[in-house]
Amino acid sequence: MQPDKSFRTIGIISRPRRADLETVVPPLLRWLQTHDIRAICDQETAEALPDSSRGLSREQVADASELLLVLGGDGTLLAAAQLAGPRGIPILPINMGSLGFLTSFTRAELYPALEDTLAGRLAISHRVMLNVELEREASLIDKRHVLNEAVIHKGALARMIELELRIDNEFVCRYRADGLIVASPTGSTAYSLSAGGPIVHPSVESFVITPICPHTLSDRPVVVQDSSVIEMNLSEKTDSVYLTLDGQKGIPLQPKDRVTISRALERLKLIQPPKKSYFEILRSKLKWGEA
Amino acid sequence: MQPDKSFRTIGIISRPRRADLETVVPPLLRWLQTHDIRAICDQETAEALPDSSRGLSREQVADASELLLVLGGDGTLLAAAQLAGPRGIPILPINMGSLGFLTSFTRAELYPALEDTLAGRLAISHRVMLNVELEREASLIDKRHVLNEAVIHKGALARMIELELRIDNEFVCRYRADGLIVASPTGSTAYSLSAGGPIVHPSVESFVITPICPHTLSDRPVVVQDSSVIEMNLSEKTDSVYLTLDGQKGIPLQPKDRVTISRALERLKLIQPPKKSYFEILRSKLKWGEA
Amino acid sequence: MQPDKSFRTIGIISRPRRADLETVVPPLLRWLQTHDIRAICDQETAEALPDSSRGLSREQVADASELLLVLGGDGTLLAAAQLAGPRGIPILPINMGSLGFLTSFTRAELYPALEDTLAGRLAISHRVMLNVELEREASLIDKRHVLNEAVIHKGALARMIELELRIDNEFVCRYRADGLIVASPTGSTAYSLSAGGPIVHPSVESFVITPICPHTLSDRPVVVQDSSVIEMNLSEKTDSVYLTLDGQKGIPLQPKDRVTISRALERLKLIQPPKKSYFEILRSKLKWGEA
Amino acid sequence: MQPDKSFRTIGIISRPRRADLETVVPPLLRWLQTHDIRAICDQETAEALPDSSRGLSREQVADASELLLVLGGDGTLLAAAQLAGPRGIPILPINMGSLGFLTSFTRAELYPALEDTLAGRLAISHRVMLNVELEREASLIDKRHVLNEAVIHKGALARMIELELRIDNEFVCRYRADGLIVASPTGSTAYSLSAGGPIVHPSVESFVITPICPHTLSDRPVVVQDSSVIEMNLSEKTDSVYLTLDGQKGIPLQPKDRVTISRALERLKLIQPPKKSYFEILRSKLKWGEA
Repeated sequence: MQPDKSFRTIGIISRPRRADLETVVPPLLRWLQTHDIRAICDQETAEALPDSSRGLSREQVADASELLLVLGGDGTLLAAAQLAGPRGIPILPINMGSLGFLTSFTRAELYPALEDTLAGRLAISHRVMLNVELEREASLIDKRHVLNEAVIHKGALARMIELELRIDNEFVCRYRADGLIVASPTGSTAYSLSAGGPIVHPSVESFVITPICPHTLSDRPVVVQDSSVIEMNLSEKTDSVYLTLDGQKGIPLQPKDRVTISRALERLKLIQPPKKSYFEILRSKLKWGEA
Repeated sequence: MQPDKSFRTIGIISRPRRADLETVVPPLLRWLQTHDIRAICDQETAEALPDSSRGLSREQVADASELLLVLGGDGTLLAAAQLAGPRGIPILPINMGSLGFLTSFTRAELYPALEDTLAGRLAISHRVMLNVELEREASLIDKRHVLNEAVIHKGALARMIELELRIDNEFVCRYRADGLIVASPTGSTAYSLSAGGPIVHPSVESFVITPICPHTLSDRPVVVQDSSVIEMNLSEKTDSVYLTLDGQKGIPLQPKDRVTISRALERLKLIQPPKKSYFEILRSKLKWGEA
Repeated sequence: MQPDKSFRTIGIISRPRRADLETVVPPLLRWLQTHDIRAICDQETAEALPDSSRGLSREQVADASELLLVLGGDGTLLAAAQLAGPRGIPILPINMGSLGFLTSFTRAELYPALEDTLAGRLAISHRVMLNVELEREASLIDKRHVLNEAVIHKGALARMIELELRIDNEFVCRYRADGLIVASPTGSTAYSLSAGGPIVHPSVESFVITPICPHTLSDRPVVVQDSSVIEMNLSEKTDSVYLTLDGQKGIPLQPKDRVTISRALERLKLIQPPKKSYFEILRSKLKWGEA
Repeated sequence: MQPDKSFRTIGIISRPRRADLETVVPPLLRWLQTHDIRAICDQETAEALPDSSRGLSREQVADASELLLVLGGDGTLLAAAQLAGPRGIPILPINMGSLGFLTSFTRAELYPALEDTLAGRLAISHRVMLNVELEREASLIDKRHVLNEAVIHKGALARMIELELRIDNEFVCRYRADGLIVASPTGSTAYSLSAGGPIVHPSVESFVITPICPHTLSDRPVVVQDSSVIEMNLSEKTDSVYLTLDGQKGIPLQPKDRVTISRALERLKLIQPPKKSYFEILRSKLKWGEA
C-alpha cells in the first residue's frame, strides 16, 4: 500500500525537557525520510537533535504541516490541539509517559501507528472544540479555540468570583463560587470531573458547566447543547479573576468583562487506536471495577 | 380566531383524591361543552362529578382523545405521559398544587391555557421518552415508555445490586451499588438529581446514567447519546431487586434479567407556557440565587 | 510467657458456607486444646468439623466465652460485635477473604495473632457502638447495639421516607429522602461513605448523620457529638419504611414510629495488628495515592 | 441588677466603609458613657464619628479591652477573633447586614444584647481555634490563631498543589488537588462546606480536612480529633501556592514548606443569643425545609 499522498509534511511537537526524546526523535526523522516525508520540528523536538537550530515555533510547524505528530502527554496535546483544530489538520498523539485520556498510543506503538496513519487505516475521532471570546468594553480582546475547557477562577487571595450566566441570551443564574468551568465532552473527564462534573461521552453534542466550590449548595453541574452560546458576565466587583484555557494560559480579567463560549467551526481530528474504546480508557484511568 | 379543529375530544386525567377537583371539574366540563368539545373523564375526574359513573379507565380516555388535560402534579403527569407519548397526543398540564418541573400552568391559568391551546397558540416542548424493555431468559417480559427515568434498585433488606452495564454492545463497567438510574434530560431534574446527577437541558439528546450509593467511590454520573442502546445485565447473585419506572410501578427482577433502554420513537408533546423558561423554573425549584 | 489466664474459653464464630473452613477449623481446635483453652463453636464453625452436632447458637457461644475469634469478613464481624459489645468481651477478627476495614488480620496471621493475644501483647481498639431503640406508641419494641450504622430506608417501591430529626430534644430538620444513615466513626467508612458521608477517625467522639438521595439539595452530612441523643420521628404518611442495623436485619416500621440512637455504654474491644494503622487500611481500601 | 464589673472597657471593631455606622456609633458611645463604660474604637469605627482621629489600631483596641463589640458581618468577626482568641476576651457580635453563621445578633438587638451581657446574662459559646504554624527550612516563619480554616491553595495559573499529609507524625496520603482546607467545626459551615465537607457541630472536638477539586476521585473529607497535629508538607515541585487564613490573608508558600495545625490553647468566647440554636441558624442559612 502506498503512503497517503495527503501527508507529505509532518510536524513534530514534543513535550519540553523530556530526556528520552533523544532516543526517539533521531530514528523517527530517519524513518520519515526513508518514507519520503518531510519532517518539521518545534523547538522542543529540535533540542533532541545533534543540531538543535532546526526548531521552528509551533505556529510555524502547524502552518507548514499536513499532520501533527505529538510526542508528550495530555498537556502537550492540548497545546497542539489549539493549533491543529482551526487549521483542520489531524493529530497523531504518542504518549511519552503514562496513559492519558487523549494520548492513547504508547511509545511502542509509534511506528505501527504511523504506518497505519499513512496507509489510510485511520480511526479519527472528531472532537468538538470551544471557541472562547473575551470582550472588554465592547471590544474583542482575545479569541481562541480550546479542546478541554475554559475556566473563570478567582485568584488565590480573592474571595470569590461573581458572574451572571446567560445561555442563548437568556439569564440562567448568578454564580458566587471559586470558579466556573465550561468544558467540552472531551474535557468532561479532566478538570470538570475533579470539580464534581459528570462524564460526558464525546458523541453527546453538549457543553458541561461545572461550578467550583459554589456558595449556593443547590448549584449543580448543568449540561447544555453545544449549539448554545454561553455568556459569562463578570460583576462590577470582580477583583483578581482569571480566565484559564486548557490549563495552559491565564488571562487576568477585569470587572464587567464578558467571556463568550460557542462551538468552534472546525472539530479536532484526533487519530486513535481502533481497538481501544472510550470506556476502556475510562475504566483504566478511573480505576473502575478494581474494588 | 377559530378553535383548532384537531382537538374535538379532550380527555381529562386527574390526581386521585383531590377535594378541590369538585370546584374545578364541573365548570370545566360546561366550558368545554360551550366550546363544542367533547370531554372524556378518567375515574379520578369523574369522582368530582355528581354522577361519578361517567369515568373510564385512563387507557380508554387516552385512546379516544386528541389532547390530554392533566389536573394534578408531576406524578399524575408522568402517568399520563406513558399513555400520551406512544399515542402521539399532546398533554396540557395544569398544576393543582405547588409548581412542578413539568406542570407549569397554575390552576388560575386553566382557561387562558385552554384558549391558547385551542387557538393554536401553542408552545409545545417535545420531550424524549425512554423505551424500557425487560427480558428474562430471552423472552420480552415487559415493555413501556417512560418520561423521567428507569431505576434498578435493591430491596430495602438486600445488600446491593450487582449488574453489568453495556452501551451499544460494548462493556462499560460493573456496578455494585444501591441502584442505578437511567434518566432522560427531563428526568435529570427529578430522582437522578437527588442521587448526584447533573442537570441536563431537554434539548441535549442524551441519557444520564447515575449510580445510587456506589461502592466504588470513583463512580460518577455518565451522560451518553440518546441514540445509544443501554443494556443492564443483572448478576447471578441478584436477590430482591426491583425495576421502577417513573416512580410509579415496581417490577421484581430475577437473577440474570436484562433491562434495555433506548429512545422511544415518539416524543412526548408537552404544552408549556410560552413565557416561562426552563431556567426560570429551575431557579424557582432549586432556590438558586436566593443566597 | 504464660497464656493470659483470662482467656480460658474462646468462642469461634464463622462466616456461613465457607468451604475453606474445613482446612482451618480442625487444626485450630487442636491448637487451642494443646494450649489448654476450651473452644466453643457456633453452627457455622461446627459445619467444618467431622461431627457437626457440636455447634451452639451464637448467643450461647458469646455467653460462655471470654474472647470471640471471628473467621470471616466484615459482615460476620458485625454480627459478632452485636454479641461481644454488650458482654464486654473482645473480638479477634481473622479475615477469610480480602482485606476488610475491620478484619485486618489475614488467615496467615491466625496463629501469631492468637499467640500475641494470649500473651497479652494486645492492641485493642475500643470502638463506640450505637444503642438503637425503636418505640411504637410509647412502647419499646426493639433495642440493639450495633457497630457500624442504623439506617432508615424506604422500601423499593415506596416514594421516600419523611421524618423529623431531633437532637437532644431540639428540632433539627425534616428529611424527605430515600433514607437516613446514623453511623459511628467505625461505620463512617462503610455505607455512609457510599452515600457521600465523610471519613471520621474512630477517635472522634461523634456520630455521622448522612441522608441518602435527599430531595433538598442543600442537605449535607452532619457530624454530632456521640453524647447526643438522636431521635428520628417518622411522619404519619410513612409507607413501606425499614430500619436496617449493620446491614444485617431489617425491621418494618410504621407511621409515627420513633427510632432513638445514643452511645452504647460498652465499647467494642477489637483486637488489631499493632503495625497496621488506620490510615494504611484506608489508603489500601480506597485506592488512594495510586493515581 | 448591677453591670458586670469585669467589662469596664469595651473595644469596638467595625466593618470598613459601612455608611450606616454613622447612625449607630455615636448613640452607642453615649449609651456606653451613661453606663460608665469606657469605649475604645478602631479606625473603621472612628470614621463614623465627627472626630475620626480617635481610632486606634485593632491590636491596640484588643490589648486595652475586656470585651470586643463587633459591628459587621462574619468577615469582621473573623478578624476580631484572631485578636480576641489569644487574649481570652469575649466577643459580642452585632450583625450589620444579613444574618451570619457567627454574627447572630441583629442590629435591632444591639442594646438588649449589651444589657444582657453587662448583667451577666451571657450565653457564651466556646469555639476551638486553629493554631497555624508555617515553617520554612526548619524556621518558624509565621504563627497565627484562626477561627474558621486554614487553606493551602494553588495560584490561579498554577496546575495544582502537591502535598503530603501527616497526622500525629503518621503518613496519611499525598494530595494532588486545587487545594486543601483544614477547618474547625465553626469553619465547617464556611468554605469547607462549599468544597463538599460535612457540617460539624461545634461541640465535636475535631478538625475537618477537605480537599478542593482532588485529582483522585476517591478522596473524601476526613474528620480527625482536634488533639491531633496536622502537618502538610509541600512537595519540591510547588509553584505558586498560597496559605490563606480565614479568607483574610494570603501568604505565598515555597517548595518544601511545612504548615502545621493544632488546637489553639485558648478558645474563642463568642456571646450568642440564648434563644437562637445552632440548628435554627443552620436551617435558615442553608434554606432547609423550604422544599
